[in-house]
Amino acid sequence: MLENITAAKLKKMTLKELIALCEEARELITQTVLKNGGHLSSNLGMVELTVALHYVFDFPEDKLIFDVGHQCYTHKLLTGRYEKFDTIRQKNGISGFPKREESPFDCYDTGHAGTSVSAALGIAKARDVKGEKFNVIAVIGDGSFNNGLIYEAFNSLRLLNTNILIILNDNGMSIAPTVGSMHEYLEILSEDMAHKQKVDRHAKIFERFGFGYDGVYDGNDLEAMITRLTEIKERIKNESVILHVITKKGKGYAFCEDDPEATHGISNSTVKSTEYSQVLGKTLTRLAEKNEKIVAVTAAMTSSLGLAGFFEKYPNRSVDVGICEEHATILCASMATAGLKPYYAVYSTFLQRSFDEIIIDICEQNLPVTLCVDRAGISGADGETHQGVFDLSFLSFIPNLTVAVPKDINEFEKMIEFSESFNAPLAIRYPRDGKRLFGNSTDIVHGKWEKLIEGDGKYAVLACGERALTQAYVGVNALEEVGIRVSVINARFVKPLDTDMLDKLREKFIITVEDNMLAGGFGSLVNGYFGGSKVVKSFAYADAFIPQGGVAELMEERGVSGKAIAEYVKSNENR
Amino acid sequence: MLENITAAKLKKMTLKELIALCEEARELITQTVLKNGGHLSSNLGMVELTVALHYVFDFPEDKLIFDVGHQCYTHKLLTGRYEKFDTIRQKNGISGFPKREESPFDCYDTGHAGTSVSAALGIAKARDVKGEKFNVIAVIGDGSFNNGLIYEAFNSLRLLNTNILIILNDNGMSIAPTVGSMHEYLEILSEDMAHKQKVDRHAKIFERFGFGYDGVYDGNDLEAMITRLTEIKERIKNESVILHVITKKGKGYAFCEDDPEATHGISNSTVKSTEYSQVLGKTLTRLAEKNEKIVAVTAAMTSSLGLAGFFEKYPNRSVDVGICEEHATILCASMATAGLKPYYAVYSTFLQRSFDEIIIDICEQNLPVTLCVDRAGISGADGETHQGVFDLSFLSFIPNLTVAVPKDINEFEKMIEFSESFNAPLAIRYPRDGKRLFGNSTDIVHGKWEKLIEGDGKYAVLACGERALTQAYVGVNALEEVGIRVSVINARFVKPLDTDMLDKLREKFIITVEDNMLAGGFGSLVNGYFGGSKVVKSFAYADAFIPQGGVAELMEERGVSGKAIAEYVKSNENR
Repeated sequence: MLENITAAKLKKMTLKELIALCEEARELITQTVLKNGGHLSSNLGMVELTVALHYVFDFPEDKLIFDVGHQCYTHKLLTGRYEKFDTIRQKNGISGFPKREESPFDCYDTGHAGTSVSAALGIAKARDVKGEKFNVIAVIGDGSFNNGLIYEAFNSLRLLNTNILIILNDNGMSIAPTVGSMHEYLEILSEDMAHKQKVDRHAKIFERFGFGYDGVYDGNDLEAMITRLTEIKERIKNESVILHVITKKGKGYAFCEDDPEATHGISNSTVKSTEYSQVLGKTLTRLAEKNEKIVAVTAAMTSSLGLAGFFEKYPNRSVDVGICEEHATILCASMATAGLKPYYAVYSTFLQRSFDEIIIDICEQNLPVTLCVDRAGISGADGETHQGVFDLSFLSFIPNLTVAVPKDINEFEKMIEFSESFNAPLAIRYPRDGKRLFGNSTDIVHGKWEKLIEGDGKYAVLACGERALTQAYVGVNALEEVGIRVSVINARFVKPLDTDMLDKLREKFIITVEDNMLAGGFGSLVNGYFGGSKVVKSFAYADAFIPQGGVAELMEERGVSGKAIAEYVKSNENR
Repeated sequence: MLENITAAKLKKMTLKELIALCEEARELITQTVLKNGGHLSSNLGMVELTVALHYVFDFPEDKLIFDVGHQCYTHKLLTGRYEKFDTIRQKNGISGFPKREESPFDCYDTGHAGTSVSAALGIAKARDVKGEKFNVIAVIGDGSFNNGLIYEAFNSLRLLNTNILIILNDNGMSIAPTVGSMHEYLEILSEDMAHKQKVDRHAKIFERFGFGYDGVYDGNDLEAMITRLTEIKERIKNESVILHVITKKGKGYAFCEDDPEATHGISNSTVKSTEYSQVLGKTLTRLAEKNEKIVAVTAAMTSSLGLAGFFEKYPNRSVDVGICEEHATILCASMATAGLKPYYAVYSTFLQRSFDEIIIDICEQNLPVTLCVDRAGISGADGETHQGVFDLSFLSFIPNLTVAVPKDINEFEKMIEFSESFNAPLAIRYPRDGKRLFGNSTDIVHGKWEKLIEGDGKYAVLACGERALTQAYVGVNALEEVGIRVSVINARFVKPLDTDMLDKLREKFIITVEDNMLAGGFGSLVNGYFGGSKVVKSFAYADAFIPQGGVAELMEERGVSGKAIAEYVKSNENR
C-alpha cells in the first residue's frame, strides 16, 4: 500500500488498512536501516503517530517539524519518497533527516536537538503576521526536552501570542536513557497512564508557560492517536497544546525493544577498525585510578563516546547532564576552578553549541579543561548537520586554547596522557575510526611537531590527524614513484603552530592537508604564518555544506586526497 | 568605614553601622560610575544584599558567583578593592566584572548571562568529590533567569546530588524590562509579598527540580536579609534552596529608580558621534513601511540596539525574547522559511551564543536572515568578556553566509537597503559609534569592494570597516608625506572576498587591517587566497584576550593603527 500512497488515499483508508500500512512501513524501515544504517528504534516507535498525523492533518499546508529529525522515516515514506527510500543516507540518496530541498512536506531542516519548538513558534508567528491559517506541529522526544532551548521557547509562548501543537514523544531515551528532573517529572505523568488516572495537577509546569496539556496516551495505539489528534486539531485554534504520548522505542522489533540504545543509530560500516572513543575510555579510566581529580562529563551520549566503563567505575566522578551542551561546558569550567581535572567528551558537531562557553568560561579563565572532540571531520551518512568539519576553524582563534590532533590511535593515547599534566585549556580532535598506524608514538611536547619523512627539499606536506596523514602518504608514495621525495610532517598541534619547525623548513612549496574547512583551518594558519614568504597550497574543504556519503568518497570528491596532492605537485613540476 | 573594611570588622558591626556602610558604598558607587561609566542601577540595588552575604557567610572559603557579574561593585568594595575602586573599568584598573586573577574573593569570572547556576553546581560538585565543606552561592537576576542555561542547570540538580544556594535577585529588569512567562510567574510570586501571604503552591516549579524555595523578601532590607541568610545557611547543609528577593534597581538614586533601563550601563564617552544602532533603527523602520515582511528580533536589549522606535511602530512584527539568543536565532530562521524577512540585532559578543544555530538553522537552510552585529570589534570598558573581536573569524567559514562590513554610517544605511532584497544569510558587523566619513556611498553590489585611493603600485591597504579604514588613512597619509602613495581599498565584504579585484591588484605588498582577531579573520582570508603569491601583512589582534580600556588606546596598543601601518611600510622600504 505504501508504494503509491497519497494523502487523499490515506485519508480514505479504514483503520484496519491503516494498521496494515503501519506494519508495511515498519517492515520496510527495518529492512532498509539494517542495510543502509540509520536510526532504527526511534523510527519504529513513531510509525503509528506519523500515520495518525497524516490522517488528521493536511500537509504540506499544515507544517510538521521533527526535533533532531532522525525519526522522520515514516513521514518520508508517506510523502513521495517510497521509491527512493532504499537510497536513504547514501551519497546522492535521500537524507536521513528532514530537508526542505527534498520535499515540500519537510518544512524545516533539523539535526541538532531542541530546535523544533522555537521553529514551530517562528512559523506560527509568521503565519499570524501574514494572516494565514494552518496548523503548526512540533514532534519532540523527551531527550530533547532537556535542552535549554525548550525552556527559552516555552518562555516566549505568551509573548508571541500564537498557537502551536507540541507532541512530546516520550520513550525514556535520547541516544542514551534520558536523565534529569524534567525526565523524572515526565515519568510521574506517565505513571498516571498506567493507573488510568487523569491528573491535571501534574500538568502545572506546562500550564505555567501558557500551554494546554493533554496526556498521557499510548502513541503506538493508532486509533487512540487519531481520536486525540482530531480533538486537538480543534483545540489548537484557540490555544497551544502539549500532547504527551508514550511510544516504545524499537516497537515491533524485539532486538530494538530490548536494546534501544544500541539500535538508536545503526552503522553500515563493514570494516571494523578501532574506535578512538574506546581508547579515550580505556585511557581515561586508567589515569583516573591514580588521579582522583579526573572527572568526565558528557551530554547524553556516554556510550558512543567510549565512556560507559569510566562512568561505571567512577560514578561519583562522572556526569551525563543530558542534551545540555552549554551546561556541560560550564560544569567543566567551574569544576576546574575548584581543583578538579575535567574532561568533556562530545561530538565535534555538538561542540558548536558550547562555542560561547569555551571562549568565556573555559579559555578566558584559562582553565585546565580537556575537550575530547569526537567524530571530527567528515562524519558520513548523517550529512550536513552532523559533519565535524568546522572545529579547527572555530577553535583556532580562541586565546589560551591548545588544539591537538593525534596522528593515530597510539598518539591519541599519548595525548590523553599528556593532557593529564597540561594545566590549560586543551582540545583534542579525532575521527570515529582509527588505526595504530605508526607504532609507538614519540612523547608529546606542547606545540611540537614531528618530521616523519625527510624529502629532497622542495616540497613539504604538513598534515594534521590520521585521515590527513593517510592521504599525505598516498600522495607522497605516488610521487616517490616518479622520483620526487616529499617531506612529511605530523602537525599534531594546530594551535600553537610549531614555528621553530616552520622557520627551519628549507622547502619552498608547503602543502597542508586537513579534514576541515579551508577557511580558518590549519592551512590558513600556516599560510598566515608565512604571509607570502612561501607558497602554501592547502587541501581542505571549500566553502559549502557537505552532504551525506561515505567518508572516503566525500574526502576524495572534495579534493582532500592523496591523488589530489600528487597531481598538484606534478602539475607544479611541469609548469 | 569602607576604607579599611575587612570581613572580621564587618562581622562585628552593629546593624546601624552596617546600614551606614551601605550608604557609604551607595554614595561611592554612584560617584564612581558617573565618572568612569559602568553599571549603576543594578549595583545600587545590590548593596544591602551584598553586605548581608558578607556578614553571614565566610568568603573566600565560601564561594560567591555573580551572574553576568556587573552587580559586583559592593562586593569589590568589601574585599580589598576600595583603594583601586576609582580605576574601575579603566585601562590597567580593576574590572567591572568578577575576575579570579584580581582577587581570591572572585571565584568565577562571568560576563554573559545565565552561567552562574551551572558554575555553582560545578563548584559544589567538585567540593563534594574532594570531600570539602563550604557554601556555594549564585546571585542571579530575573533577566538571566530567562536563559535556557538555567533550565539545563535546574534539570541536573538531582543528578549532581549537591547543595547550593541560588539568590534570585528580582528587579523586573535585565537591561530592558524582563519579559516572558517565567517573569510573569515571578511576578505572581512577588504579588504575594505585597499581600504578606506565604503561598507555597507557587513554588512548585522550583520544587519540581529539587530546590527548596524561600520567598519573597525585600532584598534592600538589610536586617531581613541577614535573618533570612542566617537561617538558610543551615538549611543548605541538607538541600539546595532558591531565595527569592525583590530589589529596587537604582535604589537610593532617584534618577536611576525612575529610568533603570537608561542607567543600566552608563558610558563615560565624551565625544558624541552617531551610533550605528540609531541608523539601523531608522533605516529598518523606514523600509518596513513598504515591506510588510520585515520583522525584528532582539534578545533583551532593544533600545541599545536602536530598535525601540521600530518596536513601537510595528509591535506585531517585533519580538524581544529576553536573554535567549539561541531561541531568537531559530525564530528568525523559521520565520524566514515561512516567507518573512527577519533581522536579528545583537551585540557581537552575544552572537557567540547563536553559533550553532547560525550554522544549522540559518545557513544550512540558506535562509534570508540578516544578522545585525552591533558592538563589533573592541568594545572597551567591559573588558575580555565583551569584546566583539571574534565575529569575523567565526562567521567567515560558514557556507552560504555573506559577511559585510560597512566603511561608515552612510554605507551602513546602503547595506541595510541592500539586505532587503538579498535573498540569503547575511551578517553586517559594525561598532557602536560611527561617522559619515565618506559622503554618499556608492551602491552596494554583493561581494564587490571599492577602491578609494589609487597608489603608485607597490603597496595596497585592504581595510574592512570604519575603524580599520580610519587607521588605514592615518597610515597612508603619513606615508604620502614621505612620498609613498599607497592604494586603499574598502573591503566591504569579508565573505565573499572580491576576487576580481584581488586578481587585478598590481601591488606586490598587500596590507590588511581589521578590528578582529588575526587568526581566521579578514587578513587570513586574503592571505589564503594568495597562497604565497603576494606578501600579505595583516594588522589584527594577536592571540590573547583583550582587557578593558579605551577603544583607541587598545587598538593602538594592539598594533591595529595607522602608525603601525606606516612603520611597516617604511621599514619594508629600508630593507
